[in-house]
Amino acid sequence: MSEVLVVGSLAYDSVKTPSGKAERSLGGSANYFSVSSSLFSKVRVVGVVGSDYSDADREILKQRGVDLDGMQVVAGKTFHWEGTYEHNLNEAVTLKTELNVFADFNPELPAQYKDTRFVFLANIDPVLQLKVLSQIQKPLFVGMDSMNFWIDSKQADLIEVMKKVDIVFVNEGEAKMLTQEDNAIVAIKKVAALGPEYVVVKRGEYGSTVYSKTHGFFQCPALPVEKVVDPTGAGDSFAGGFFGYLASLRPSGQEHKPTWTELKQATLAGTVMSSQTIQDFSLKALAKVDKSSYQSLSADLVKMITV
Amino acid sequence: MSEVLVVGSLAYDSVKTPSGKAERSLGGSANYFSVSSSLFSKVRVVGVVGSDYSDADREILKQRGVDLDGMQVVAGKTFHWEGTYEHNLNEAVTLKTELNVFADFNPELPAQYKDTRFVFLANIDPVLQLKVLSQIQKPLFVGMDSMNFWIDSKQADLIEVMKKVDIVFVNEGEAKMLTQEDNAIVAIKKVAALGPEYVVVKRGEYGSTVYSKTHGFFQCPALPVEKVVDPTGAGDSFAGGFFGYLASLRPSGQEHKPTWTELKQATLAGTVMSSQTIQDFSLKALAKVDKSSYQSLSADLVKMITV
Repeated sequence: MSEVLVVGSLAYDSVKTPSGKAERSLGGSANYFSVSSSLFSKVRVVGVVGSDYSDADREILKQRGVDLDGMQVVAGKTFHWEGTYEHNLNEAVTLKTELNVFADFNPELPAQYKDTRFVFLANIDPVLQLKVLSQIQKPLFVGMDSMNFWIDSKQADLIEVMKKVDIVFVNEGEAKMLTQEDNAIVAIKKVAALGPEYVVVKRGEYGSTVYSKTHGFFQCPALPVEKVVDPTGAGDSFAGGFFGYLASLRPSGQEHKPTWTELKQATLAGTVMSSQTIQDFSLKALAKVDKSSYQSLSADLVKMITV
Repeated sequence: MSEVLVVGSLAYDSVKTPSGKAERSLGGSANYFSVSSSLFSKVRVVGVVGSDYSDADREILKQRGVDLDGMQVVAGKTFHWEGTYEHNLNEAVTLKTELNVFADFNPELPAQYKDTRFVFLANIDPVLQLKVLSQIQKPLFVGMDSMNFWIDSKQADLIEVMKKVDIVFVNEGEAKMLTQEDNAIVAIKKVAALGPEYVVVKRGEYGSTVYSKTHGFFQCPALPVEKVVDPTGAGDSFAGGFFGYLASLRPSGQEHKPTWTELKQATLAGTVMSSQTIQDFSLKALAKVDKSSYQSLSADLVKMITV
């Protein structure tokens, strides 16, 4: 298999949902992505934490074999996000964003990371996404995520990144916002027209729509979940499963990009992983997924979409 | 093939959507259902119209071979519904409901209808749904639809009908309303617990979720539609395609109920038909669907959900 590199936030989250709350528990896109992706492949993390970041939280990644050489530790506090989900569990309301050590984050890749073939630029400043990508010598397959904040404040930079990646992951609402389109299908195509061959629009409990400029649409429903405890990290868990699965199919040395069929299989992998994340706070449910439970959930999903 | 019987409204609709408006154009659940279903099977209609109902509108059904012997014509005006869709095309706002001749509708089945095997009770007063069903000698497979109005005003009768049918079609919002559940998956199961073996929850642009107490879930996405002109009739077109397809698989004399695999295929048929209805006002787009365009759309859908 090939390695997967992710750059993103390593955070402490305080989250309140109709099911309860979690105070300063482990979160951040790079954490969700890594734990999910590491079920399938070796993962390299690029990010920054403060001196308050606990060994126990580091251990969660280490136990999954995640390479932390790219995790910078600097004096100060770890990035802290506080949010709440009301009745509509599909949409977080941000109450507080304390960037802390993340404010001056300057991603420098360890030398041994520069040959990574599968690269995921999680939701951070698009200028930093570009900076990370420029340090990779010869990426095979690059994905990115973003959020409404960057669509508003740094749209030109964001579009620069989109031109350089193979696949964009975006929420339905963000796709509409970015393209100023009400119709999700038109919005997806307009995102693809900005550059990437593939666009994945994440639609929460309704699953995801994958669009390829060459192959058209693939529609993947979500796994039915009877109790959504905390949707935080669902999108990054999805992308993690997606990328980890793809990298697992390419022994290093194999040079061709993922095929359309492989991308569809990867969508199922992402769907399974995100369905688990949302069933508990923080990374608790996600970290429990092992090869055996994954296989079983994956079989359930295939059964549910097979005529 | 077997015949399909539908009881429901035959109406004139005045609809306004972001794409424009249609004044007193042909509508009503039985019309949408019949035009859709008749692509696959012979259809028998039970309903009532006023003396203002035009021959041209009758002709739309006749051209598709629909049997109108059960269509009562009485003095007075045809049922008229006036509604609008705002930004959210998934939800109609009713502006006016003029029952007219529908107010005293008393469904009496022609003698030759009483042997019908596939029966669909479209959205009408549940007391009338029961009255129709009681006139069928030996139904093989019975479905029903309803709406928030009956959930509010005649819930006990509605639940009586649910106990007697094989399959319930319901919007996501109505499923939640009926079961007082926020989670769609829990709501679906609770609807099934009221009686029917199968429940189809219609989720608009997100497709449909089919639940079987025996077989679990089948998830079917919608066909991507870039311009939704008027969503009116989508649900009835879905049910029409669904029932017409199923009946087409059973030559009269074959006695077994549809299988789970057949129900999944029928869901695809319903999905294709509803995707066309919404692309124009009234029955204009639906009535244009022929065997050839259906085959092509059906192949598109299969491709989109196949890994």
